[in-house]
Amino acid sequence: MTSALSGHDREELVEARIEKRRRAVPRFTDERVTMAHGAGGKASRKLVEGVFVPAFANATLAGLNDAAVIDVGNARIALTTDSFVVTPIRFPGGSIGELAVNGTVNDLAVSGARPIALTAGFILEEGVAAEVVRHEAGAMAAAAAAAGVAIVAGDTKVVERGKADGMYITTTGVGVIDDRAALDAQSVRPGDRVIVSGPIGDHGVAIMLARGGLDIDADVSSDTAPLWPAVDALLAACGGSVRWMRDATRGGVATVLNELALTTEMSILIDEHAVPVQPAVAASCELLGIDPLYVANEGRFVAVVAPEQALTAVAALQSVAVGCGAAVIGEIGIDPPGRVLGRTVFGGHRMIDMLVGDPLPRIC
Amino acid sequence: MTSALSGHDREELVEARIEKRRRAVPRFTDERVTMAHGAGGKASRKLVEGVFVPAFANATLAGLNDAAVIDVGNARIALTTDSFVVTPIRFPGGSIGELAVNGTVNDLAVSGARPIALTAGFILEEGVAAEVVRHEAGAMAAAAAAAGVAIVAGDTKVVERGKADGMYITTTGVGVIDDRAALDAQSVRPGDRVIVSGPIGDHGVAIMLARGGLDIDADVSSDTAPLWPAVDALLAACGGSVRWMRDATRGGVATVLNELALTTEMSILIDEHAVPVQPAVAASCELLGIDPLYVANEGRFVAVVAPEQALTAVAALQSVAVGCGAAVIGEIGIDPPGRVLGRTVFGGHRMIDMLVGDPLPRIC
Repeated sequence: MTSALSGHDREELVEARIEKRRRAVPRFTDERVTMAHGAGGKASRKLVEGVFVPAFANATLAGLNDAAVIDVGNARIALTTDSFVVTPIRFPGGSIGELAVNGTVNDLAVSGARPIALTAGFILEEGVAAEVVRHEAGAMAAAAAAAGVAIVAGDTKVVERGKADGMYITTTGVGVIDDRAALDAQSVRPGDRVIVSGPIGDHGVAIMLARGGLDIDADVSSDTAPLWPAVDALLAACGGSVRWMRDATRGGVATVLNELALTTEMSILIDEHAVPVQPAVAASCELLGIDPLYVANEGRFVAVVAPEQALTAVAALQSVAVGCGAAVIGEIGIDPPGRVLGRTVFGGHRMIDMLVGDPLPRIC
Repeated sequence: MTSALSGHDREELVEARIEKRRRAVPRFTDERVTMAHGAGGKASRKLVEGVFVPAFANATLAGLNDAAVIDVGNARIALTTDSFVVTPIRFPGGSIGELAVNGTVNDLAVSGARPIALTAGFILEEGVAAEVVRHEAGAMAAAAAAAGVAIVAGDTKVVERGKADGMYITTTGVGVIDDRAALDAQSVRPGDRVIVSGPIGDHGVAIMLARGGLDIDADVSSDTAPLWPAVDALLAACGGSVRWMRDATRGGVATVLNELALTTEMSILIDEHAVPVQPAVAASCELLGIDPLYVANEGRFVAVVAPEQALTAVAALQSVAVGCGAAVIGEIGIDPPGRVLGRTVFGGHRMIDMLVGDPLPRIC
């Protein structure tokens, strides 16, 4: 995956590829919405880029980052929103309320923004027990306190029995861009290292097992957690050497890496044996016939860091609880452009595509 | 409704009532959520004040204003969120997408904030036609352009067939507090005038008729519209003399006035013959046996203005299209505390309570 091109030629090649990508206009040709359009993979991307981005035409949205950045007075604020429809609403390691807080503060964190405030919109199902609503309000409050944010505004609607599954929650987060962050996918360069902040696949597998009906006896809890402490440690240690970050939720690590490869028109080579996966998660995935690289995480992110800072970055992440399992898992390359490759444990290579379809609906 | 108290005694009485109100802790005693909890009236208030406010304990949320105000750098930004579950999703005069933009920018406007950005979270129903999604994206884009805001971030989830009605949309708005605004319910004083920005009840009646099954042949369109131009004109004309504003959505004008009466521990006397209602809306309401004061509006707000500025305020509102039907409809009094009274066309008085139950579910 290395290249014989000179630094200058390589720069030109990279720029040309970025330009080509900019000109590509995705189209949404499906006649109806399917579950796959909500799965965070290829179909979701087509829906967003083919329908919403052209309709709402503005440069901020078109960036398709985890959070939008707008200037207000002398502050640069980050804004992000997420709707949560996870089922079941309680699962080992968390619940929809906790997820709704962590999911949104994490989108801010990986955008280099310190979360400061949240809003919450509730769509409740008629007949849901008051106790369930109280539990989720408590879970959100605890998660918000742990993440250092206040839930400052909210709204509640009720839909008829059967029209929701207990509740859906949409949270929107506001953060302040940290001065140490200089994140930009376009600053990613061949040779940069790919780091994951901890073992992957816990959340998706926990949800799958919580739904029951599988004859698997594994003790797996969701990894849902606020990521700002890890991001904070990483920025403190490496600052501007951190090129790019994204939390690996729907579609998993494979999908966010594919998005990065597409945006940068570079290649990404992953050492599959270096990807941290807990034994119970690995075993469950094997039994279920799914690849942990595609399983959703709710407390893990992927970072791309300049090669000389990679070990410092991993050490910084490992210094905080939520990043204690951090590891370098791969490297940015130049060919094949826009592709993610895995070096298998047997030494061969395989193409790692973006998530197609929806193996696990309603994961968050 | 006038009082023989001296100015000083009256001040003391008002302060004592405000303090009493502050100490009252509402409790949520229902075992299950019902449609009424989403209707914006008494039940909604109990759910919000009895469950969410104590759980999320923070002063900003506890204010229960239409928008939260937070300081970021040298800017004061307003934040508000609303989930939209209206059915049907298209109706005369608008659709869910337009409503989702206007509803949220209006919560900012009545908080004295110029809207600057929106986020949108979509919960789509599996099987909804791409054309329907495209239409709503277009409706949102047009409404956002009309309101002068950009939709800068979004999220899309899909739930199984039957788990939503086409789509639910949650929008969150960010605005910048206007220097001319000095809004505070606690600044409302006896003698202040109550103004409504235009004829009421159009939105709710339009939805009701759009659902069909009623043998009423009336030409009523939703009043959905962005209110900032009217608020802007009002603040330009009257500035600090505008004490309080609120858009009269779920629960209608009656409910927002009751909320104001409760918060201030003052009385509000409404001249019922002065309340503007279009003939087709009045006739439909009469046939349906509902009071237009309880019907939702999506492009109308109520303002309380110092008495000497009331006519200036109405003239300012009437200078913009969305406020052309503005009128003074009543006056703040001192007794009975926390109550809204209507002076009927026959000269008598009746108590106008907060909305109880949910005569018209899923209105927004």
